[in-house]
Amino acid sequence: MARVVVNVMPKQEILDPQGQAVHRALGRIGVTGVTDVRQGKRFVIDTEKDLSADELQEIASKLLANTVIEDFDIVVEGA
Amino acid sequence: MARVVVNVMPKQEILDPQGQAVHRALGRIGVTGVTDVRQGKRFVIDTEKDLSADELQEIASKLLANTVIEDFDIVVEGA
Repeated sequence: MARVVVNVMPKQEILDPQGQAVHRALGRIGVTGVTDVRQGKRFVIDTEKDLSADELQEIASKLLANTVIEDFDIVVEGA
Repeated sequence: MARVVVNVMPKQEILDPQGQAVHRALGRIGVTGVTDVRQGKRFVIDTEKDLSADELQEIASKLLANTVIEDFDIVVEGA
């Protein structure tokens, strides 16, 4: 068994309205000193066998992330 | 400056239709051996000052996660 985590975040230069909404909400509950908030997606994939680095790149870039506006990173747990 | 990452995932016992959709799509692009896929949210919060553990718990449980159906974990980077 292997577990792969793929984190997909909006590119730094892309407007992130969801992150901005959270940022404003933090202010409303009295949290100060926050300079930026970004919201993305997190995928946890459990597999019976290890997937190759190429397979993981293909999964992330073709299926999980829109590489025009998002970056991704891949973490193989227990590797 | 500090960076806090909050990962919010559906509880294990909760149906995850988004994760299931990704799971089916993986099969369609020929990826085999995947036993489970779960999709959640990832928040990256940059702050000028360190936030206390209590503040982070409150932010995560009140604002970022619906603790009825979601679990969260908090990672303070560079701590």
